[in-house]
Amino acid sequence: MHLFYDPNIDQSTVSYQLNETESRHACKVLRLKEGDKIGLLNGKGMYAEAEITGADPKRCQVKLVAVHLEEAPDYTIHIAICPTKMNERMEWMVEKVTELGVTEITFLLSKNSERKALKLERFENIAVSAMKQSKRLYLPKINELVKVDAFIKNNPNGFIAHCYEGEKHNLSTVFDRSSPILIGPEGDFSPEECELAKTNGYKELSLGANRLRTETAGLYACMQALMTI
Amino acid sequence: MHLFYDPNIDQSTVSYQLNETESRHACKVLRLKEGDKIGLLNGKGMYAEAEITGADPKRCQVKLVAVHLEEAPDYTIHIAICPTKMNERMEWMVEKVTELGVTEITFLLSKNSERKALKLERFENIAVSAMKQSKRLYLPKINELVKVDAFIKNNPNGFIAHCYEGEKHNLSTVFDRSSPILIGPEGDFSPEECELAKTNGYKELSLGANRLRTETAGLYACMQALMTI
Repeated sequence: MHLFYDPNIDQSTVSYQLNETESRHACKVLRLKEGDKIGLLNGKGMYAEAEITGADPKRCQVKLVAVHLEEAPDYTIHIAICPTKMNERMEWMVEKVTELGVTEITFLLSKNSERKALKLERFENIAVSAMKQSKRLYLPKINELVKVDAFIKNNPNGFIAHCYEGEKHNLSTVFDRSSPILIGPEGDFSPEECELAKTNGYKELSLGANRLRTETAGLYACMQALMTI
Repeated sequence: MHLFYDPNIDQSTVSYQLNETESRHACKVLRLKEGDKIGLLNGKGMYAEAEITGADPKRCQVKLVAVHLEEAPDYTIHIAICPTKMNERMEWMVEKVTELGVTEITFLLSKNSERKALKLERFENIAVSAMKQSKRLYLPKINELVKVDAFIKNNPNGFIAHCYEGEKHNLSTVFDRSSPILIGPEGDFSPEECELAKTNGYKELSLGANRLRTETAGLYACMQALMTI
C-alpha cells in the first residue's frame, strides 16, 4: 500500500485531494487508477485507507474507506542536539531516531557549535519518509535551532552528555520517560553550559568508555532511553 | 596526536617506515617534521607513540618511543548481515558499529538479497577511520560475503532477526556474549533460511514493534548486545 502524508487530515475527513506533487506521484509515477487503494497518514496517530475516485495527475481525488487511530505514546523521548558540521550526519540521525520512535528533536546552538544555521524542512521530509518506512503513525516534533542556555532554562531537570569529569549516570538506569537528553557539538559543550545544566537540575550522562561522534551519541542515547520504556 | 594504522606492526617493532600514501599525508598534508610525534595503531590492541626521525614525503621514518597494549575484549559481538542495495547504508552501519565496539562483521548472501557482490576494502577503510576516531585499539574483523545457508551450518546456535511469526526473544535478555546475530535483507530472510536457522539451534529475535531498515536493525542489535556486556 502506497502511503501519503498530510498533517491536516483527521478522522472527520471524508474525501481528500492530494496536492499536485503527490497527485503526479500517484497517477503518473505509480500509475494508480480509479478504484486503487492508498494509505493516508497524518503523523498524529491516524492511518486511513482511501480509494482513488479521480485519478487526475494534478488533482487526484480519494475517499476515505477505513480509519485506524493509534494512541499517542505514553512517553517522551526528546533528543536536543547540536547539529554536526556535515549536515548529512544529522540527516541520518533524524532518519534513524524516527524509525526507532523518538518523539521530539530540538537543534541546539552551543558556544562550540560549528554549524550556526539549519533548514528544518529537509529534516522534516526525512522524518516523514522514515515514519512511512517504519510504519509509524506519529511524526516526531522537530524544533528550530535554539541556544543551549535558553533551552536549559526553559527545560530544567534533563540529562546532559558531555566528556568532562563529573558524576556520570547511565541513561538506562536514570531515564524518567520524559526529560530532554542533551548531546553536545563536535567540540563538546562549554564548561559554562555544563555548569548551567547542573545548576538547573540536569543529570550528567556517560555514553560508554569510547568517544562517539555527535550523531552516534544522539542515536545511542535514544536507544538507551527506548530500552527503558 | 595524528594516528596511523598498520596491521603489521607489533610490540617488537623498533623503527618503522610509513607507506607512500601515509608518508605524503604526514609530511606534505600535515607538514610534520623530524621530532614530531605520531600515534601508531595495529588494530590488535597496540597503541604506540612514535617520533619522526626522517620526514621524507615518500618514505617517512619513525622510531617507537612508547607502547601501550590493551587486552582483547572478553566478548564477541558478531553481526552477520545481508548488505543493503544502497552501499552507503552499509557503510554507515560499519562506521557506527565500529565506533560502538562490534568485534566481527560478516556479509551474508540470502535468497532475497538484492546485492550479490561487494568490495570489502572500502568497508575496511571505514572501519579503520571509525576505530581511530573513537580511540579504539581493536579493529573489527570483516568477512567476505557468504551464503546464509553455509554460514548457519558453520556457525550454529546464534540469533536471527526476522519478521515472520515465531517465538521471539529480546536480545538484551538472551545474548550470550559470543554467538552471531543474523540480520536479513530488505525482503527478509526466506522461510527456508529461517527454518534452517531454527533447526541449527538459532534463537529468533524481536527488534521491537516497528519495521526497521536493515542497517538500523544491525545497529540496534549491536547496541542491545553491548548493553548486556
